[in-house]
Amino acid sequence: VSVQPQSVLIDGVPAASLPATDRGLQYGDGLFETIAVLAGRARLWPWHLRRLGEGCARLGLAAPEASQLAAEVAALTAGEARAVVKLIVTRGDARARGYGVSGSERTRRVLLRYPWAQPGAGARVRLARLRLGENPALAGLKHLNRLEQVLARREHTGSEYDESLLFSSSGALISGTMTNVFLVRAGRLVTPRLDRCGVAGVMRAALMAMAHADGTDIEQGLLTEADLESCEEMFLTNALTGIRPVTELAGRALPAGPLTQRLQRSLSEVLDGRRELQHG
Amino acid sequence: VSVQPQSVLIDGVPAASLPATDRGLQYGDGLFETIAVLAGRARLWPWHLRRLGEGCARLGLAAPEASQLAAEVAALTAGEARAVVKLIVTRGDARARGYGVSGSERTRRVLLRYPWAQPGAGARVRLARLRLGENPALAGLKHLNRLEQVLARREHTGSEYDESLLFSSSGALISGTMTNVFLVRAGRLVTPRLDRCGVAGVMRAALMAMAHADGTDIEQGLLTEADLESCEEMFLTNALTGIRPVTELAGRALPAGPLTQRLQRSLSEVLDGRRELQHG
Repeated sequence: VSVQPQSVLIDGVPAASLPATDRGLQYGDGLFETIAVLAGRARLWPWHLRRLGEGCARLGLAAPEASQLAAEVAALTAGEARAVVKLIVTRGDARARGYGVSGSERTRRVLLRYPWAQPGAGARVRLARLRLGENPALAGLKHLNRLEQVLARREHTGSEYDESLLFSSSGALISGTMTNVFLVRAGRLVTPRLDRCGVAGVMRAALMAMAHADGTDIEQGLLTEADLESCEEMFLTNALTGIRPVTELAGRALPAGPLTQRLQRSLSEVLDGRRELQHG
Repeated sequence: VSVQPQSVLIDGVPAASLPATDRGLQYGDGLFETIAVLAGRARLWPWHLRRLGEGCARLGLAAPEASQLAAEVAALTAGEARAVVKLIVTRGDARARGYGVSGSERTRRVLLRYPWAQPGAGARVRLARLRLGENPALAGLKHLNRLEQVLARREHTGSEYDESLLFSSSGALISGTMTNVFLVRAGRLVTPRLDRCGVAGVMRAALMAMAHADGTDIEQGLLTEADLESCEEMFLTNALTGIRPVTELAGRALPAGPLTQRLQRSLSEVLDGRRELQHG
């Protein structure tokens, strides 16, 4: 199914293309956010902004103005009941050939609006063969170097699976290709630590903050393939789907268990805007 | 010093920009080659073509026609005595949002011509703090996911150093940020294995083929920081500079030793076109 962006803003101006010298193309030198915009409200907006700001700081690029971004998201989605906005931020045009940064680069903003896609129900999940390289300097960032995800995603293209679970080169469970992952083991919630690789999702962060506020801390742990055998519940998160229960894990049926369902109900209040969360 | 491309061809047509939906921008889903074009001759052309073809095969994208690429390089550099051509090949426009590949993507070719830059003489080299993640699925490829190089390059921006040597997360010496590295230890030539990370440079490949043809095999080995202390000579290679002797290694002066100088003389015959190498 071909899904093309319905509208694109580049540095605030309607445009379809950007210079071939952009460092986002040349090196993947940038970051992105995928944002659900529902009834004119950019969901989890403070979380998106915070992750983007942290990513800009870690890559050493000037962060876009928050108010400018908000205005551009609003302009791009005006009149749409539901939309997906992909925001790409790059270090802008290369000032010379080569990896070096002059310091005079001007951050470029690319906003693409896509039609809303209804999240699927229970997910069938397999284990990826590809392993993620480990680099603390990039861990957690939603940066533009995503070839590992492209290759892992290809592993289940055309299959009955919805997602592949990725392990790091040292054997730690990290995430799906486009989701974070949570497990229930011995009645306790655990999600992989993301200090060596992986993307720290905004939905993951919001869910953890919500659980913490409710007195149910979610452990960030080191999980291996063996830990999957003893898991009682599993679910995936991302900014668009919220909590998606895993109903099949590498051939084994899993229930959408009680803890998953309880979190889904609580999270829906946050996602509907009925409940405010501290994002500090 | 700002150095802008003097001319750009996109899919064979003079153009300055490309669609914001290009997967090269979105995910770094593509490859590149940096080619020295001297007196109308694209130096090491068969080596560039072979690496590009192997990269396309490994990423599962359709390789551009070799004859079409050659014609475009020639058109882009017509009348130029010396030029640098950066060839970027991407998986083309995303057919939908997300990492998935539909199989109907059309490979995009972006060729940028830059002015020739005279290679520097002896290089002053330091050790990078950043470590490279290890992923055999991407090792050796000159792909567009180059944030590690961008960050490592920033470590010596504005310093007296010309290059930073990178180690992998498991402590193996791999390369410079934009160069491959060769060492002489106990009179023998060694270069790092690139089966877990790093870019397999065309100059590295040509040099190894030349040495092999001359009866001096270059070992691909596992080298650590400790091995640098006992190294007698060191040099860097890339497609533009050929062999560049390292004259300072992390504060220690090194001679441009006899083996380095002999290889420089032999390689100059290959690079001048006076000697043909098998690239099989």
